[in-house]
Amino acid sequence: MSSPTFADRLNAVATETETLLARLLGDAPLQGETARPDRLTAAMRHAALGGGKRLRPFLVVESAALFGARRDGALLAGSALELLHCYSLVHDDLPAMDNDDLRRGRPTVHKAFDEATAILAGDALLTLAFDILARDDVHADAQVRIALVRELARAAGLGGMAGGQMLDLAAEGRFADKRALSETEIVTLQAMKTGALIRFACRAGAILGQADSTASTAVARYGAAIGEAFQIADDLLDVEGDAATLGKAAGKDADAGKATLVAALGVSGARRKLDRLIAEADSALAPFGAKADTLRAAARFIVERRN
Amino acid sequence: MSSPTFADRLNAVATETETLLARLLGDAPLQGETARPDRLTAAMRHAALGGGKRLRPFLVVESAALFGARRDGALLAGSALELLHCYSLVHDDLPAMDNDDLRRGRPTVHKAFDEATAILAGDALLTLAFDILARDDVHADAQVRIALVRELARAAGLGGMAGGQMLDLAAEGRFADKRALSETEIVTLQAMKTGALIRFACRAGAILGQADSTASTAVARYGAAIGEAFQIADDLLDVEGDAATLGKAAGKDADAGKATLVAALGVSGARRKLDRLIAEADSALAPFGAKADTLRAAARFIVERRN
Repeated sequence: MSSPTFADRLNAVATETETLLARLLGDAPLQGETARPDRLTAAMRHAALGGGKRLRPFLVVESAALFGARRDGALLAGSALELLHCYSLVHDDLPAMDNDDLRRGRPTVHKAFDEATAILAGDALLTLAFDILARDDVHADAQVRIALVRELARAAGLGGMAGGQMLDLAAEGRFADKRALSETEIVTLQAMKTGALIRFACRAGAILGQADSTASTAVARYGAAIGEAFQIADDLLDVEGDAATLGKAAGKDADAGKATLVAALGVSGARRKLDRLIAEADSALAPFGAKADTLRAAARFIVERRN
Repeated sequence: MSSPTFADRLNAVATETETLLARLLGDAPLQGETARPDRLTAAMRHAALGGGKRLRPFLVVESAALFGARRDGALLAGSALELLHCYSLVHDDLPAMDNDDLRRGRPTVHKAFDEATAILAGDALLTLAFDILARDDVHADAQVRIALVRELARAAGLGGMAGGQMLDLAAEGRFADKRALSETEIVTLQAMKTGALIRFACRAGAILGQADSTASTAVARYGAAIGEAFQIADDLLDVEGDAATLGKAAGKDADAGKATLVAALGVSGARRKLDRLIAEADSALAPFGAKADTLRAAARFIVERRN
């Protein structure tokens, strides 16, 4: 038997994550809960189940493996992160935000249900992410779990993902005259909007494995590079992809006048930047040797994916 | 000098909470944050600063005092809870939810800013609540902080506050024909929508004070009774109050066909139920003797308040 390929590893985490999420979004109330309303449970399941590459859980699992942390704890932490990612998609899709009807080839939550239900489903997914990170099964040491809670909150909130979405709406000219952002401003916006959760995914493995500060810093450097690469690759796909492959409308960013590095640097400039970011990711992983080969492959997967 | 009255104690916590919240919502990014966008910071400050009785932080501080927990840690945990409460108000006020223009006599966040900003401000307030609970200053023991995170998440999410808001919208007839809820169904709805955070406030003091299970159960019983009483008193105010005193529109619940115990039991039936709940709260506090006098006064304040 040959050893598992990168695709095998990615698919294994996706399958395990799907199973875990289905269990976490079951309908039986937990201790401390009163009841789980059917409609809200169904909306949360619509948002979180049935697809996605589960890239963020994969990064948690693979960075945790680098430090010898338990796989089941990493999968649970990765599932919490995935729920938080799904909340952000539900809220970003709302009519008052990006007003998207389609997500992964299916109706968005506010189309399949309604706006109020979508707002509440997003809120409850975000809340559930922190519930899960606080559970004993994530890691025996409460210090580790509290570090995960704090770092995820910083990555997701005012100074991270939510702040990045605010900057993105502002860049569209929602609140004042539209002006072109500098390359630096776009990098900051994207480091917040999409980069922060990807950096957190990589950091989470180091936290779970109680890595020393040198190793933690190296993994964070890797996470920052692939986080930036992820968004550029996404923006290139939006320019070059088609709706059938993407499972969502293509060319939407340009239509909305979104601030992207592809618009700022051009397609070939953006591709050169991707090459530099891959080199940066490889350089950050150098101290780990062959143990980090899956993370190296993940960086390539991120820039070469077609959807 | 006479000893401080109940009003003095309540006002002291309100003032300290306001100061803390203003600091927590400052504009300097923390470690792990990239930048704090001005517009989002301003919307969060609009939602969280400048008013409110700060009842939930008060309950955290006073229940913590019962168990000898540090006051500054309790104030910080109470401020986290208040931010989470403020998020729920911002999202509940949205056009797709209760569509309110006025809150505490001021424009709601989506009126003062816009819908997208209000959604993001709510999201970021919720996220910041967990960030704060994870900080060392709340309690030296990470086990205590992780217990606060888990219990707050359960109180606020699918099986708690967010679920309760879902049930409330359903009871209005949003998703199917409207039908009258039974008294039991209304009690469950309200135990989730407003009761859960008030119960958590009382439980938080016991967690911070590392109370034994008998004492924790007693405080939780008190919290459940005053949580239920709080909502009935609120519904009575809606029937009997006027907009000038309330700082928001009166008679709105009846107009919206909201499910309330006042509608189910009548005004005098609701008042009798309040009396029973106060007796239940007193009974739960009996083991604590005179130390619990402020919590006893808090129960009376909740049923007698005029706004």
